[in-house]
Amino acid sequence: MARINDNYLNLAAGYLFPEIGRRVAAFQQANPQADLIRLGIGDVVLPLPESVRTAMHRAVDEMGVEQTFRGYGPEQGYAFLREAIAEHDFAARGVEVAADEIFVSDGSKCDSGNIQEIFAADAVVAVPDPVYPVYVDTNVMAGRAGRADTAGRYRGIIYLPCTHENGFLPEPPSQDVDLVYLCFPNNPTGSVAGRDALAGWVAYAKRCGAILLFDAAYEAYITDQSIPHSIYEIPGAREVAVEFRSFSKNAGFTGTRCAYIVVPKTVEGRASDGRSVAVHDLWSRRHSTKFNGVSYPVQVGAAAVYTDTGKAEVRERVQYYLANAQIIREGLEGVGLQASGGVNAPYVWVQTPQSKSSWELFDDLLERAHVVGTPGAGFGACGEGYFRLSAFGKRDQVEEAVERIRTRL
Amino acid sequence: MARINDNYLNLAAGYLFPEIGRRVAAFQQANPQADLIRLGIGDVVLPLPESVRTAMHRAVDEMGVEQTFRGYGPEQGYAFLREAIAEHDFAARGVEVAADEIFVSDGSKCDSGNIQEIFAADAVVAVPDPVYPVYVDTNVMAGRAGRADTAGRYRGIIYLPCTHENGFLPEPPSQDVDLVYLCFPNNPTGSVAGRDALAGWVAYAKRCGAILLFDAAYEAYITDQSIPHSIYEIPGAREVAVEFRSFSKNAGFTGTRCAYIVVPKTVEGRASDGRSVAVHDLWSRRHSTKFNGVSYPVQVGAAAVYTDTGKAEVRERVQYYLANAQIIREGLEGVGLQASGGVNAPYVWVQTPQSKSSWELFDDLLERAHVVGTPGAGFGACGEGYFRLSAFGKRDQVEEAVERIRTRL
Repeated sequence: MARINDNYLNLAAGYLFPEIGRRVAAFQQANPQADLIRLGIGDVVLPLPESVRTAMHRAVDEMGVEQTFRGYGPEQGYAFLREAIAEHDFAARGVEVAADEIFVSDGSKCDSGNIQEIFAADAVVAVPDPVYPVYVDTNVMAGRAGRADTAGRYRGIIYLPCTHENGFLPEPPSQDVDLVYLCFPNNPTGSVAGRDALAGWVAYAKRCGAILLFDAAYEAYITDQSIPHSIYEIPGAREVAVEFRSFSKNAGFTGTRCAYIVVPKTVEGRASDGRSVAVHDLWSRRHSTKFNGVSYPVQVGAAAVYTDTGKAEVRERVQYYLANAQIIREGLEGVGLQASGGVNAPYVWVQTPQSKSSWELFDDLLERAHVVGTPGAGFGACGEGYFRLSAFGKRDQVEEAVERIRTRL
Repeated sequence: MARINDNYLNLAAGYLFPEIGRRVAAFQQANPQADLIRLGIGDVVLPLPESVRTAMHRAVDEMGVEQTFRGYGPEQGYAFLREAIAEHDFAARGVEVAADEIFVSDGSKCDSGNIQEIFAADAVVAVPDPVYPVYVDTNVMAGRAGRADTAGRYRGIIYLPCTHENGFLPEPPSQDVDLVYLCFPNNPTGSVAGRDALAGWVAYAKRCGAILLFDAAYEAYITDQSIPHSIYEIPGAREVAVEFRSFSKNAGFTGTRCAYIVVPKTVEGRASDGRSVAVHDLWSRRHSTKFNGVSYPVQVGAAAVYTDTGKAEVRERVQYYLANAQIIREGLEGVGLQASGGVNAPYVWVQTPQSKSSWELFDDLLERAHVVGTPGAGFGACGEGYFRLSAFGKRDQVEEAVERIRTRL
């Protein structure tokens, strides 16, 4: 019989969100009348911006005319989109990123899941704890980890604790590693890293030759002007960092699908024979061999995000969700819960009361308040005792959820 | 320095199509007046069907209204699309495929490139020769092959010769393998496999426990009623085969991006401890961990392909390209060239005249006729001495190309 990839059998339980889905479905079946409010999965609810839709309509029309029909596009993305990204997301902030260092994709989940492929099978990987499960699971699948212990920590992965004590900011590990995943503004804790913290990471990476895999999917939520939006705002980062960006959380593309990854030509890895290899070359080879570009109408829609109208529509959405975050955080603090995040990020990270476990609070909230959140333990051992509430909801629902938590828990 | 995946260094030259692109660009720079006709890469030229565009417009509008806005969809694809596929592509032909055995994706290049991940790192892989390069390159990247020899054959990969003598139909290898990639109607040779040939493959797979990875991206081009459109038309295939399908070549989705893979729940692989594992479970875990679903408007567009109007529009396109194929094949035969394919497939496979090499004919055609084709050697050692012409062109261009080949070569 065909031999399978045994590493898949090392994966602990199901991926977090399907497990939540399972419990919610079971609850709904038992309680068909319950009016559930979902602040679990970080999914946007406001409509796709008008500027984006108008652009997509135009692109769909172009596809109907022989002269403007588009077949296979460049795997890396159309120049019109890559150039808009380089100009507005980077040059406008004084950051040097060339258009050909940008690879457009259909999602940060894919990019952050696929990036590990171009590194050694025995590369040593460090991740924050708690962490977005995709970083870990994709490395487990690739054989860079053994089985998980009872707390869910896989053998071979280096975990960087993010706790109340360190302000949910991971510190560089004591040993040398090949790859470090970082995410700021952070999912799930909502913490942000200032210039000094990021400079510390760049210095660490340079010292031990690590590559930083920097997930900036939530940069649009930064309100504090001193916080960098891109790792490349830190001198030297162009030699050691790859950055993930997405249109999901700013422009509402979770169902429309567009993201990108920045791989500077100056980032190098080492082959086992000692020679240096440009990571850009490896990623380019992977991307052009295993991917065929993002849907043309979607790329045209993404480019509209950079028009003046598009920018205003994005700003409006981000402010709406940030106001939700404030309502959640203040509401929880008002009933004596300890909460962080929600100021430069769309996530509020709450300490569970009365030493409840994360999943106990999940079940409690679901059963008593009919509110769906995300148990911190689902993001890692250090997430135990915490709970994530997402600001991606409609205002009245967010207010109602906070009211229910206040009165029913 | 971060250690890279050394296997990438085993990849011979660039991916075929970028190399063609490079030569064409160099020619154009030197000959800016030349009126090039491109019959190289298999890319459609006719507009996206109106039914598809209408559906996509509707979906984009839905995205603009809070009540109908869609965020994250099911990773596997929306039920409306999976059910339409199961009904029209399978049940209508008397084939049993359940909707939850279908995984919607953004392209067959991705699916056929990613499928190898769920199998053992040392799985033995057989491929036809010539072959779509993605099957081979993705296995080289995963470490299932060593370096390539001078003919471009990688150590460790089992090549199945497709020659004039065997009618370009590969035969099962003499040894046991884990995985066999098959593609019918074939890219690049345009050959098709009848019921007996496919039954032979299913029997081989059952006998040695191999899994068949069956690429049916060109099934819409089958004109001979006796030729199966799906591997599942062969009894027993549900136990041993995975099938790839695409909307690219039938409905013109090369730039719109939608495809799917069928993984029957009855296909099993073996873990190293001897236990059987459902391949469906592994693929489902991979798909939901590394992919976030296809753009909603694109899925709505793909579903429109199954309406009566959509079907008629697809039929019209397929017939147009098949008429092109006939013009190419007859034109080439008219000047004494030996050609095959082009009857149940959009590709014509031509033997190079005067013992020219494939790339010699490529350069000749480019320089003398200003026609871009694809050198057979780019698809594998057995492709040397052959040349692929694609029927995906506009009629006047196809006629002009044939005329130029007739008069200038």
